[in-house]
Parts: sequence; C-alpha cells; structure tokens
Amino acid sequence: MTNTADKGDRLASAVSRIRGLLGEANCLVEPAAVEPYVVDFRRLYHGSTPLVALPSTTAEVSAVLAVCNELGVGVVPHGGNTSYCGGATPHAAGDEIVVGLRRLNRIRELDPANHSLVAEAGCVLADVQRAAESVERLFPLALGSEGSCQIGGNLSTNAGGLAAVKYGVARDLVLGLEVVLADGRVLDELKSLRKDNTGYDLRHLFLGAEGTLGIITAASLKLLPRPRTIETLFAAVADPEAALELLGRLRVASGDDVTTFELLPRSAVELVCEHVNPTADPLGGTHAWYVLCEVSSARDDPSLRAAIELELERALEAGLVIDAVFATSGPQREALWRLRESIPEAQRRAGASLKHDVSVPVASLPAFVARASAAALAVVPDARLVTYGHAGDGNLHFNLSVARDGDDALFLARGSDVEAAVLDIVREFRGSISAEHGIGQLKRAQLKSYKGPVALSVMHSIKQALDPNGIMNPGKVLADR
Amino acid sequence: MTNTADKGDRLASAVSRIRGLLGEANCLVEPAAVEPYVVDFRRLYHGSTPLVALPSTTAEVSAVLAVCNELGVGVVPHGGNTSYCGGATPHAAGDEIVVGLRRLNRIRELDPANHSLVAEAGCVLADVQRAAESVERLFPLALGSEGSCQIGGNLSTNAGGLAAVKYGVARDLVLGLEVVLADGRVLDELKSLRKDNTGYDLRHLFLGAEGTLGIITAASLKLLPRPRTIETLFAAVADPEAALELLGRLRVASGDDVTTFELLPRSAVELVCEHVNPTADPLGGTHAWYVLCEVSSARDDPSLRAAIELELERALEAGLVIDAVFATSGPQREALWRLRESIPEAQRRAGASLKHDVSVPVASLPAFVARASAAALAVVPDARLVTYGHAGDGNLHFNLSVARDGDDALFLARGSDVEAAVLDIVREFRGSISAEHGIGQLKRAQLKSYKGPVALSVMHSIKQALDPNGIMNPGKVLADR
Repeated sequence: MTNTADKGDRLASAVSRIRGLLGEANCLVEPAAVEPYVVDFRRLYHGSTPLVALPSTTAEVSAVLAVCNELGVGVVPHGGNTSYCGGATPHAAGDEIVVGLRRLNRIRELDPANHSLVAEAGCVLADVQRAAESVERLFPLALGSEGSCQIGGNLSTNAGGLAAVKYGVARDLVLGLEVVLADGRVLDELKSLRKDNTGYDLRHLFLGAEGTLGIITAASLKLLPRPRTIETLFAAVADPEAALELLGRLRVASGDDVTTFELLPRSAVELVCEHVNPTADPLGGTHAWYVLCEVSSARDDPSLRAAIELELERALEAGLVIDAVFATSGPQREALWRLRESIPEAQRRAGASLKHDVSVPVASLPAFVARASAAALAVVPDARLVTYGHAGDGNLHFNLSVARDGDDALFLARGSDVEAAVLDIVREFRGSISAEHGIGQLKRAQLKSYKGPVALSVMHSIKQALDPNGIMNPGKVLADR
Repeated sequence: MTNTADKGDRLASAVSRIRGLLGEANCLVEPAAVEPYVVDFRRLYHGSTPLVALPSTTAEVSAVLAVCNELGVGVVPHGGNTSYCGGATPHAAGDEIVVGLRRLNRIRELDPANHSLVAEAGCVLADVQRAAESVERLFPLALGSEGSCQIGGNLSTNAGGLAAVKYGVARDLVLGLEVVLADGRVLDELKSLRKDNTGYDLRHLFLGAEGTLGIITAASLKLLPRPRTIETLFAAVADPEAALELLGRLRVASGDDVTTFELLPRSAVELVCEHVNPTADPLGGTHAWYVLCEVSSARDDPSLRAAIELELERALEAGLVIDAVFATSGPQREALWRLRESIPEAQRRAGASLKHDVSVPVASLPAFVARASAAALAVVPDARLVTYGHAGDGNLHFNLSVARDGDDALFLARGSDVEAAVLDIVREFRGSISAEHGIGQLKRAQLKSYKGPVALSVMHSIKQALDPNGIMNPGKVLADR
C-alpha cells in the first residue's frame, strides 16, 4: 500500500463508498463547506481533505471506519474544533478523511437517581451541563469553550478546566464508553457503574488518546448533586507560596469544597484593564498576585460563608492575604469570572505571545514559577510574564507577552528557546509539558523529547495493537506518520 | 519453547539465576517457607512453585522479570495474599516463580502540601493510611483486610471497599505509577501531578490488570485533608428503594459528604447476633432492611449533625425511615461498624455459602435485588438470602447461606446454577459480574461468557502487545493459559 497512484485510487474509492453509505447530504466535499473543518481554532494549521463525513449514528461511524481501514485511508475525528494543538485538523496532503461527529448529538439517557447521563460524542458541553441541571444535577466539567466544544473531543483530549481541583479532569467523570475501533468494530463498554473489575480498563486507553486509537461515540458521564451554596472570592496575595498556603487553609475550612482556585499575576489584571475592561480590577492598590477562589456545596449552608470569612480573617492577620473581596451578588460573581476569562483575549490584543501549558506538583509551584520566570526572562529580558492558571491543580499557563513596544517577529523568533528553557525546568520538577491541552500536531516533537523512552515505546505498542493500519488520526500524538 | 524437558531446564535456569541475583536469604525454596505463598486466602487453590523471590528494590524486580522473560518462565506477583479470586496463587503445575513484593515496602515520599505520597508496592494499606494521618491527611481507601493487604495488590486489583461512594475506587486515588514491564524495562510514570495530558494514560492499563501486564512497584497516591467531623448513623428502612431515596436526600443534606452507605438485610443482622455477638442489633424491633451511613467532612462543622438529623426527621415523617440511631461516641461508632464487618464471619459460621460480588447502576438496585432474589430462591428455595454491601456504589455482595438445618454439600452443588441465574440478571441490568474482587483464576470462565467479545479481543491484543511471551501471571484474568 505504498504506491502513490494506488494510494490515490484507494482514497477515491473510500470517498465514493462513504458517500454511498451516508448520502450526499451528509458528505461535505465543496471547498467552502469543508473549510471550517481543515483550519484549527488558533489558525496554526491549514489542512486539506477530499471529504468531511457526517455520520449520525454509531453504526454509520462503524461503517465509515471499516471502509477506511480496509483501504488504508487516514481518518481525522472532528468535534467542536477547539483543540489548541491542531489535534482535529487534517494534514495538508489531503489524503485523510475528516469524520465530523456533530450529528451524533443525542442525550441517550438521563438518570438522576444513578447520578449519570449518557451523551453522544457530538453533544456540546454546555448542552450536557444543561441536561444535568434540568434534573437538579451537576456535570462539573467547566471550560472556557463550553459553548462550542463537544463532549467527544473533551473526552478524547481529557480536558481539564476550571473545576478540576475538586472534581478532577474529564477522565475522572466517565463511567462508561462506546468506541468505534479502527477496524469498525464497536467496543461497547457503555456501562453506568461505579464499580466494575472485569479485566483491563479499556475506557482510559481512549480517554486522552486524541482519536488515535478509535472514535469515542458515546459516554456515560458521572453527575453530582447540584450546588446550592456557592461562594466566590478574590484575594490579593504576596506570592504563589502564600496562595498555596491559603488553598490548604480553605480546603480545610470549607470541608474540602474548593472547586476553583486560580492564580493571576498583576500583569494579567493590568492587561485585562488595558485591553478589555478598564474597571476589571476588583481591588484597589497594586498587588503582585491574586487568587480567584470558588467554594461550592451541594448543601444549602449559610454557615459556609462564615467559616470561609473566619479563615480569611486569620489569613489577613497572618499576612498571607493582603486584601480580599467576596462576590455578594450574581453580577459581582460574573465580573470576577470575566476578569479571569478575559486574560486570553487581553493577551491577544497585547501583541504576540508565547504560551506553555504546564503542570508541576502543587507544592512545587512557587519554586517552579521563580525558576521558570528567571529562565524565560534570560532569553527575552523585556517580555511581560503573564503566568496564570489553575494553581489548585499545579497547572499553569506559563505565558509571555511581547514588551509594550516590542517587535512581534523578533519576540516570536525566540519562542523555541523560551520553550526549551521552560520545559527543561518542568522536567526537573517532574512536571508535565502538556497539562491539559494535549499533544495533537503541535507538541509531537516535544513529547518525543520529554516523555520517557519506555513510555513512548509502550504507546507505540498499543497504537500498533489497536490500529495496525495506522488510520486513526495519523501523525497526531505519536510522531511517526 | 514447547518441549517439556527444555521447559524444565529453563525453569531450573531461571531459579538458579534469580538465586544468584537476590541471594539465598531472599529466595524461599523450602516447602514450609513456600507454603504461605501457594495457598490463597479463601483456600480455594493450592498451587506449587520452585521459588518465591523476594526482591527489595525496583531494580531487583526488573532483573527477575528480565530473566523470566528471556527464559519464558511464568511469574506470579504476590502481595498480602488477600485475593478473593486466587489472583496471586500459582498454578499447581509448579512451573511459575512467585515474586513476593513485601520487602519493597518503603514510603518514598510524603508531601502533605501536594496532598500526595509515594508508596512502594509492598506497603501494607494500614501503614499507608497511618503515614497520611501523620501529616493530617487521609488516604481514603478502606478495606476489611487493610491490616494485611498491600497497596500493590490493592492497585493491581483496583480495590473498592467501604468509602468508594465518596472517594472512588483504588484507580481514582492514583496520580502516578512505577511499573516493571514483562521484559524487565521500568516504566517510570511516577509523577505526582493532577493534570498530565502527554499521550496515552498507561497507569490505568496496569491498575486492575491483576499483574498480567507487569508488576506495579510503586505508586503516587492522592491524599485528602483529614476528616474533622464524622457522623455515623444506622437506620431501619422498609426496602432497598427507601434506602436509595434516603441516600439521595443525605447526599444533598450533607453537601455530598456521604462517605459510606451500606445496605444490610435483616438476615445479616440476625446471623451476626446468632453467631458473633448477641447484642449486635442497635435497634429494637424487626425490620426488613438497614442502612449504615457515614458522613465525613474535612471541616470542623457542628452544623452537619443538625442538618442530617433534620433530613432524617423528614425521612421518618415521609415513612422512608422506620427507626434510626446516631453513634454518639467512638465505641458506639465502632459497634455499628463491627456489626457490618462481622457479616462474612457470621456467614462462615452459619455453614456453606454462595457469594456473588456484583454491581448494577445504583438506581436499578431495588429491581435487581427483587429479580435476583426470586431467581436464586427458585434454584435453592430454602436458602437464606444475605444480600448486603456497598449500596451507594450499586455494589452488592449477593450472598446466600445454607438453610439452618440444610446440607452443605447439596447446597453447594447448586452453586453454578445459582450463579448462572444471578449473573444472567446482572447482564440484563448492564451490571458487572465482578464489581470489586476482580477475576483472578476464579472467574475466568465467567468473564469469557459475560464480557463482550470485542472487549475480550482488545484485552488479548493488549496482553499480546505488552507481554508477548505470556509470562505475567499466566492464566489469570484471561482464560487461555
């Protein structure tokens, strides 16, 4: 199957057979219709494909994959197209078929008594959240892109987000999976059980595999009781160390109900005030670091606020916290969240940026910030550090913006040097070079450098075992397309 | 490698080389010394081995496996020997080497600020719990056998236990793993991170694989703040449906802090009173079903008890709860727990028993109990049903004891018929035929019948990819030794 002419024939044959299977209406071939499927969210990649197939059932996904596997044609699964790493964008060669999952978008089952729901891959995350809310339940995965990202993509990339400090990442919220394997067979592990020790856990192979081992078509998701008490606070702290000490105290004071714990540097607040909203800063004065913290309880609990306030007073007395404000209304809460969520937009408007989605053990976060900041500034001394993120998980978006009057191109030209400096320090701290955004196309080379050789070898063995023809999202995650 | 004489030579060579590697003192070969390693906890199996190797470092485990892989000699990993399914017992042929992990028992790292600790496989679970307590943390895995089981075995069997309703099962408590692969390579995924999306999640392959893919030598485990408020209550309810309604209400009233929710039938209370402790029944009167419920909070929270009491009063008024008692002292709490934990002993003293460790979706539990009870009694009409367990997880020990004056042998002879009847109903409810005890040797045939063929095929592919010579715990989980 290495002859080029033969390869073209096989691709044409696959396209033709899939058009027959799904019908013309569900097969996009015109360039204008295909375009949204071949450019990634960050516009880092522009791919090409002869066909976007839009199956609406698991059986159709199965039939499409069986054809592609038989003919050795690559398949790129495509959800809400919110990957930060080009994970859902085909290569420019145009020899892969895109499988869009958006028509596979039913909530198959909603079971509040079992605290579970079964959603198909193409369900938009916000719709899953709303389905849970409709029966007084919470589906706790919360992402900036929740209005457009799809649950299949969330699971395939093991999305993290804003509430992982309490609820875990996407893989922690999955009870069961339905997956179409590379050869079209349907792996039905769509159980809604809390305990099931019957052999190898196959769910976790596909969760986070970015579509390289099969296509997740449906999942049974874990729900929780809806929160009835939510307290949101914004605090100024001297440094990341003080932030972590505060986190530890609030975990105890709240009964381990801290659901969000975000760290923001002064630079992020200033960028948002300058570029997005001049009144975004909720506190007077200039402070080096800030924390956005949310505590949620399923219980209707007026005593929770008092318990947190008491702990906060102690933290103020101890000098851990310099200033703090509670949201006392819905709009105030939204304003605090908007400040946090406006940082990417503010960075975009502030010119070129360099971004690193990394994690370290939570306790190592202050030392990591100090070391990595110095190392990055040694490469680009006039850059603005915009290090923010999910400190409660040890997950930082270790970002830099170009200096106020700096040259974008010169700044970006130092990108790989900055990255190497930062990731080497991540390695020293036994951290992760991709905490929540995955690998996709963007970080394949870094994965090869920073992942251990034994782990890489085991990954290749598994890829070979489950996708021997190499048709599933070729060249994503593993580097050897 | 199929010639029998050659096989004997290879086994002898492996034994000799391993004795050289570890030293005579760490190699058990005398029958009396070997005996505890070849008989399982339930005495269902009596195996044989020429050698129990006792490595004390990961490097030694690696060296042992490299030898066995080279020579094609089977290896049986052995922890605290508490498997209910013969998972750690060698076959009777005597052609496998047992690798005992008990000397690999260091706590390598204790990091309260990161809420994590790193323990080697041979650490006894209770010692891990104590290490966490020593720094004001909780390691929440709680099992009846915690005084002797080892963490490596807990993880390899994905143990469940008494607190899974809140904290999840063993696999939910693992941040990172160190594993020696079949060929002796060391897979170092021993990170203590909350977020790490760098390729396939290899941890979850080994968690629950019962030593058939490699040997877990160390794990980074998730800790939580130590509970400061614990409320324990025992309630009489009319039926499993009322129990589940109570669970839902208590989850909300407690802020989702229900950590244990056990269901007990009247028969279990009567068996414990008759065979273990005549004063075990904490409530007057005769009630069909009981619930043992514990609520824990990391917060020092006097209002929690009042909130639960209020909900309990409402449940009494609504007729959901018939009677209830709170533990008001440590000894009272212990007595309630002892009642629950004495059930296996009481069943043992009551004569022959038939046991099924199954799970169904939590909401299906009442219907399952009704259907399975009828089906079991249709086979053994005079048996005593002793259906109890972790109702909050949908996990029941669906057990039967022989009639008071029944014949053990006649009763046991119906075992496979009862099992088939029960497991067929489990399948109808999309449940699990082994919720927390795993497969081992005991349930291989059932796995083959009840697991889907695609899942079985994928499991075999993974086994072949990671252990091509088939040396890791041969004939466990998968049936084709």
